[in-house]
Amino acid sequence: MPLGSRERRKENTRRALVECALRLFAERGYATVTVEDICAEVDVSPRTFFRYFASKEQVLAEPITTALDVLRAEFVQTPPARSVWTGLRAALLATVEHIEAGPEEFLRAAQIVRNAPETLSSSARALLEWELTMRSELEQRLGAGPDSLQPRLLLGVAMVGFRTALDAWTESDGARPLRELAEAALDTLRPAARAIERQVT
Amino acid sequence: MPLGSRERRKENTRRALVECALRLFAERGYATVTVEDICAEVDVSPRTFFRYFASKEQVLAEPITTALDVLRAEFVQTPPARSVWTGLRAALLATVEHIEAGPEEFLRAAQIVRNAPETLSSSARALLEWELTMRSELEQRLGAGPDSLQPRLLLGVAMVGFRTALDAWTESDGARPLRELAEAALDTLRPAARAIERQVT
Repeated sequence: MPLGSRERRKENTRRALVECALRLFAERGYATVTVEDICAEVDVSPRTFFRYFASKEQVLAEPITTALDVLRAEFVQTPPARSVWTGLRAALLATVEHIEAGPEEFLRAAQIVRNAPETLSSSARALLEWELTMRSELEQRLGAGPDSLQPRLLLGVAMVGFRTALDAWTESDGARPLRELAEAALDTLRPAARAIERQVT
Repeated sequence: MPLGSRERRKENTRRALVECALRLFAERGYATVTVEDICAEVDVSPRTFFRYFASKEQVLAEPITTALDVLRAEFVQTPPARSVWTGLRAALLATVEHIEAGPEEFLRAAQIVRNAPETLSSSARALLEWELTMRSELEQRLGAGPDSLQPRLLLGVAMVGFRTALDAWTESDGARPLRELAEAALDTLRPAARAIERQVT
């Protein structure tokens, strides 16, 4: 269904705010750009800005937030297929298509975060650094190059197991035994790990 | 090697700050507790506090940060085994043992975050909400209960594929084709997904 003219105007304002904010962040540095600066460029009031976004952090996260919304909407629409993975895969590839239709903002936001780690919370920054050193350790052990996807996938799969066990444990306020949860999660993921290691390039 | 008395004193101060901060966050609410409040309870100066932590957010993240440090140290020490997964699994289970040796702080920090989503950045909060709705959608499709690990593992594995492709794409500043990266990552993870779906309980 096409948007009405009011919705279209709102969507245009929203897009103008995102585009302009990302451009200013890239040009002047995320930390120095204020909401007022963004509003001045787009010629709207801060009140209007805050009708769309709670903070400039939310504008920076907009490309990935939108991608996740697309992913969820696409997945919900997939017919209950033979396997849930088939649905997830279709939804992920549809999201990729959405991103490829206008990749500039996504890339720009990613570059801003990469070049200005202060855009992340201190714990997110610590996690990112941790991942980078773990990844290079895995690359070395697997004999894989820095472009290879396998070290990232293997580390990611291991961390999914760890996080799943920790989440289930903390959600039960410690009642479920953490070690059993971790072993169950890792056992379930073992075929994944083996398949990934077999494909190292 | 046992710690010298100076190191031991430092470690004791650090632990006292974490314990006391987590207790105050739980009792009074994360948002209302200041660094000064924590210092008053432990009887140290803010200058001392800031020698250990950059912010109260860093104190809240301390249990998970420490666990990640343990995980990395354990992994680096594992002998180059037949498979990297064997090393990752051993390191993860050693980390679980470390957490189980003193689980209270870990659980308390997780509870504080769960009960006070304002401790998270707005994008981390959005991601968490997104994950919860996706997880319940997957539970329904898989016919799994809320205690089941499989929906979380399957979603986690799909997101590892998505994130790996996005990271490799943004690191190449868009030069590597996103769709090919996503397909390669998802193909590599397919055996994992199938193994997880087969084990749904």
